[in-house]
Amino acid sequence: MLKRHAANPLISPKHVQPSRPDWSVIGTFNAGACTYNDEILLLLRVAEKPLSTDESIILCPYFVDGELVIDRVRRDDPDWLTDDPRLVQNKKTGLLRLTSISHLRLARSTDGIHFTVEATLWLSATDPFEAYGIEDGRITRIGDTYYVNYTAVSTYGVATSLVSTTDFVNIDRHGIIFPPSNRDVTIFPQQVNGKYVCYHRPMPQFGGLHMWYADSPDLKHWGNHKPIVTSSHVDWMSARVGGGAPPILTDAGWLSIYHAADTEDRYCLGAFIADKDDPSKLVAIDSEPIFIPEASYETEGFFSQVVFTCGVVEREGELLVYYGTSDEHTALATIGVDELVSHLMKS
Amino acid sequence: MLKRHAANPLISPKHVQPSRPDWSVIGTFNAGACTYNDEILLLLRVAEKPLSTDESIILCPYFVDGELVIDRVRRDDPDWLTDDPRLVQNKKTGLLRLTSISHLRLARSTDGIHFTVEATLWLSATDPFEAYGIEDGRITRIGDTYYVNYTAVSTYGVATSLVSTTDFVNIDRHGIIFPPSNRDVTIFPQQVNGKYVCYHRPMPQFGGLHMWYADSPDLKHWGNHKPIVTSSHVDWMSARVGGGAPPILTDAGWLSIYHAADTEDRYCLGAFIADKDDPSKLVAIDSEPIFIPEASYETEGFFSQVVFTCGVVEREGELLVYYGTSDEHTALATIGVDELVSHLMKS
Repeated sequence: MLKRHAANPLISPKHVQPSRPDWSVIGTFNAGACTYNDEILLLLRVAEKPLSTDESIILCPYFVDGELVIDRVRRDDPDWLTDDPRLVQNKKTGLLRLTSISHLRLARSTDGIHFTVEATLWLSATDPFEAYGIEDGRITRIGDTYYVNYTAVSTYGVATSLVSTTDFVNIDRHGIIFPPSNRDVTIFPQQVNGKYVCYHRPMPQFGGLHMWYADSPDLKHWGNHKPIVTSSHVDWMSARVGGGAPPILTDAGWLSIYHAADTEDRYCLGAFIADKDDPSKLVAIDSEPIFIPEASYETEGFFSQVVFTCGVVEREGELLVYYGTSDEHTALATIGVDELVSHLMKS
Repeated sequence: MLKRHAANPLISPKHVQPSRPDWSVIGTFNAGACTYNDEILLLLRVAEKPLSTDESIILCPYFVDGELVIDRVRRDDPDWLTDDPRLVQNKKTGLLRLTSISHLRLARSTDGIHFTVEATLWLSATDPFEAYGIEDGRITRIGDTYYVNYTAVSTYGVATSLVSTTDFVNIDRHGIIFPPSNRDVTIFPQQVNGKYVCYHRPMPQFGGLHMWYADSPDLKHWGNHKPIVTSSHVDWMSARVGGGAPPILTDAGWLSIYHAADTEDRYCLGAFIADKDDPSKLVAIDSEPIFIPEASYETEGFFSQVVFTCGVVEREGELLVYYGTSDEHTALATIGVDELVSHLMKS
């Protein structure tokens, strides 16, 4: 249903300067998005890896006490699973290492299409819970404060942490808000019935990968956990579902664009509307995806067959859906708010 | 260091009436404990399974919409992992089923040694998050209210839920306080610096199984998550650590008796003291276990080599450590508060 922008992909690794001369940028994707003054801002996830000429060796960068360490795993080492381009895993110990390390980088635009990516890092790994990097920032404006939650990855697991800013220069850190394993947290832009609200995605051992509701008195302590959208036998969402962009208030209720993946790791976007006064309750959901990987920059790339959004901006009745493609590029697709809402209310 | 009681084990499956005539009780263990009026109360985890005469078939009971369903898995079915007596798991889909289903049962005693186990169920599965049963209740008295947190098990994963009572007859339900996978939650018996406090044990995919600190304004919303005791290369705690009994305030700080397991699934008890005013900070910890499986009822049984506590009662300067043995019996071991504290402060 979404309409791809002709300028896609908007941002690619070649547009972004690496943080060190001996690194290369391999992904500029899964951006949080917001309006700030007269600009549209993106917080890009920038994935980098050490430069290497030896294809037979997989390099795995991570931080120990602030120092960079690079493990070397032979691609044909029988002790390691090396098929997933994103990671390697030791078959005996279960130890997992990533093949890249991510940080968040600010990109600015006046038209929402042409972005200038800053050379400096906006947010990067600083504590042991971020030893493997930080990923997938999502921006929620509440009053004059912009809250950014992101995925902190380490041997502690995959957790969700929170920072905030009022000027995108000074950053306040609020620590881990969802302990591991939990990611894909989307915080609502206003309180509902006196409580802050979010959706989150626990990743249980031996359990389904579903989207859950939670609420909070202060954005830091979360409770009242309830599943809202569950992965199912419907094939496009058979493996997992999780939050996309922070929800948007419409006349029909809270509109969410979320992601789902099948057992082949094809990621699509879906949409639903939740009750205006109780967002733990579904009002309408499309059983079909609203957007699937079809363009070449979505079907090919670092991790192919992926469209994945962390940020949607509403402008003059239109939704600007910024989305990552194949864990590599940032692209834009659009749809009218009324068109999407009326489609969902009919479903 | 702990002294086993001569009457051990205090409670065994044969002492407990099954909830249905066609079931047998296979475990009475991992009891929460408290004093109430002049009695010591235990909330026993009672594990049951359907009666069966066919050893070649493993029966897996669970609830669907309140109705009991029993799956049958052939012990030699090559599609299933059947080595763990507690569960089976499908090799292809990852689907996990338990071989028993647990509820909580109240046991009363005036001397702390001889217990009368009630015939009625105190708390049993009631919602989809408890489809595989409820396990490991822990009791914390705060003011005149007794809070009981427990493990809710289902295809949603392993979560922690909370109920409360003032009379052990009427029960208020407060829902899930830690989404999956999280268990071994120990709630402190009073606020610290104006906040409720607990330890919890997230079970991340691809991450270590550590004990974490969290605090809360209301016992329902939890945040400020920080690891406090991490599983390590020390062999007795190499696989996982997690909360045992709710912490006890001493002059030296908050005393916790916790559990740890090695990669062979041998469960021991350890102890530490945390800061009186900030229980996210360790004051003293013994690098060795304070209690290891040695008695025959600890080294043999349904799941052997396990000592595991959910409840400790302080009485006249002595700690009564009620503990589960081999996922089968409830036993008692004791130690003086001063003896344990001075041992830890020297370590």
